[in-house]
Amino acid sequence: MLPLLPFKKTNDIRHFINFSKKKKKTLEMSKSKILVVGGTGYVGKRIVKASLAQGHPTFVLMRREIGYEVEKLQKLLSFKKQGARLIEGSFSDHQSLVDAVKKVDVVICTMSGVQFRSHNILLQLKLVDAIKEAGNIKFQNIHVNVFKTQRFLPSEFGIDPSRMEHGLEYGKETFGDKMVVRKAIEDAKIPYTYISANCFGAYFVGNLSQPNTLFPPKDRVSIYGDGNCKAVFMDEDDVATYTIKTVDDPRTLNKTLYLRPNENILTHNDLVEKWEKLTNKTLQKVYISAEDFLASMKDLDHAYQAGFARIYQIFYDGCLMNFEIGEGGEEASDLYPEVRYTRMDEYLQRYL
Amino acid sequence: MLPLLPFKKTNDIRHFINFSKKKKKTLEMSKSKILVVGGTGYVGKRIVKASLAQGHPTFVLMRREIGYEVEKLQKLLSFKKQGARLIEGSFSDHQSLVDAVKKVDVVICTMSGVQFRSHNILLQLKLVDAIKEAGNIKFQNIHVNVFKTQRFLPSEFGIDPSRMEHGLEYGKETFGDKMVVRKAIEDAKIPYTYISANCFGAYFVGNLSQPNTLFPPKDRVSIYGDGNCKAVFMDEDDVATYTIKTVDDPRTLNKTLYLRPNENILTHNDLVEKWEKLTNKTLQKVYISAEDFLASMKDLDHAYQAGFARIYQIFYDGCLMNFEIGEGGEEASDLYPEVRYTRMDEYLQRYL
Repeated sequence: MLPLLPFKKTNDIRHFINFSKKKKKTLEMSKSKILVVGGTGYVGKRIVKASLAQGHPTFVLMRREIGYEVEKLQKLLSFKKQGARLIEGSFSDHQSLVDAVKKVDVVICTMSGVQFRSHNILLQLKLVDAIKEAGNIKFQNIHVNVFKTQRFLPSEFGIDPSRMEHGLEYGKETFGDKMVVRKAIEDAKIPYTYISANCFGAYFVGNLSQPNTLFPPKDRVSIYGDGNCKAVFMDEDDVATYTIKTVDDPRTLNKTLYLRPNENILTHNDLVEKWEKLTNKTLQKVYISAEDFLASMKDLDHAYQAGFARIYQIFYDGCLMNFEIGEGGEEASDLYPEVRYTRMDEYLQRYL
Repeated sequence: MLPLLPFKKTNDIRHFINFSKKKKKTLEMSKSKILVVGGTGYVGKRIVKASLAQGHPTFVLMRREIGYEVEKLQKLLSFKKQGARLIEGSFSDHQSLVDAVKKVDVVICTMSGVQFRSHNILLQLKLVDAIKEAGNIKFQNIHVNVFKTQRFLPSEFGIDPSRMEHGLEYGKETFGDKMVVRKAIEDAKIPYTYISANCFGAYFVGNLSQPNTLFPPKDRVSIYGDGNCKAVFMDEDDVATYTIKTVDDPRTLNKTLYLRPNENILTHNDLVEKWEKLTNKTLQKVYISAEDFLASMKDLDHAYQAGFARIYQIFYDGCLMNFEIGEGGEEASDLYPEVRYTRMDEYLQRYL
């Protein structure tokens, strides 16, 4: 309730309101402006939500090609209702991307690189071009590149692609494409942060990492190898929270932010055990050797092979935890201990 | 806050809590149990929300075929969190449908019959079979059909198909298929209500009924004919509210509920004028004759022809308002004047 009584006249009230507005504006100004490209997608919608929740002026690219995708339209309208600004643009219209990028300080791209959804990673090169052009200032006939964009977060949010050169062939194009985008960013000297978000809960936790389903198994569960390889599991909303936390943080400038909160580093056995505790039911374990797992992938179509390859890389090769975070990286829960991240038994409870 | 002081002992508190629980249970018991089939879709998700909001024990069919459709999974989990019960089932498993139907009093099906989404109207015949079987009781070697299902609302939610026999050929299969389902329902003497919901806002209001887009036009607007044909426009959430309102209402048993709230009966000109008022900008009008409109459809692909055909039927033929509601129907806002339905200037404000 407004303390109306102490004010003598409407002027005082006006002053009070102006003061509040100014205060809000100052607060808003101290937070960078964020443009989300891919805001209606699985990761993007959470990034928009987290950006708004953390008080950033939030812009969402609204692609003209949306056609009759009514759910996307209504997601955009709901962002608008929550305070985001929609910017019309298209990947077939370079200038529209330049104009969009010029409005903000930080660009976060979340286009899909998952084969069974869509695989658009290289489209981001157009965004890199737009960021370059937006920062290109002509000064006494000399082109000076002073980046307006203070940080670009390209679509990563998975396994660190810089460590996957020697992995399985299946679905390897994701890592290759991401490295092409990284090279373009770094060659252009665009300030960046890469987010290595590890295993998303909906794809790896709810189904106890079983393939071809998103539901928990009822009686039998396949265990990969001896089930003791360490992996990292994340609530998708927490991925978004950490991502937004980092955009103005000098400690992650030109680095990779790895999401490895301590209690979410679990083996496959740990994960299955958590579910068994929650359901009070023991599942029959079928231990799958690496050879058998690889053999089972052979006749799948390409999109599924890519999906299976991730399981192999994570649970047999241990690609998420088989290295220490070096100088080029930081760990999210170390930097932002104030974030109360979701533990995986909590995540699994949703499926009970 | 609980009035703790007057209670002397924990027993009193326990009594109080039990009383509250009992009261809640009685309330729940007086509302019919609803099963929504198609609950993750555009209409279905609103039906689930309205059913929960109006206090019905709400069940949602969870199809095993969901595969990797992660947004559907998470929609289902969010329904669950809000109190809905998920029932596993499949249209390839008759018994699973029978079991699902047996758990409830009312079945509402919302599978898509829109060509550019998916067109599954006839799948509902399997649901009709399940409802028949669920009510089939063997009594001293005689099969007696006592319907457990007190009301079935098949997927309609559009133009009344019983009036479209002589319309354009394009996309006519929707009406034909809906009539096949109606016949199966009526032949089996399953109690029913058909919902004729007219024009959904996202497809007809936000874009001022322009084809190929869901956004409002910026400079020019096509007006169909002289723009004076009456139509009816609805907020999708209101469609769901009225649908749930009617499931236990004897006045709509074996009838069609037409959604024609007075202030939402508008001509194309009225609609455009509302947007012009809101934006304070006059659009250039291009009046399209019926002949020109029909000619423009010729080379479109089938799904778009079906979409264009709806525009023709609504704005040239006037199929929504060219008849009086007779004995077989009721009007929603007449029956439920307590629903504060969304007016179309309010709906359009979301696009400003």
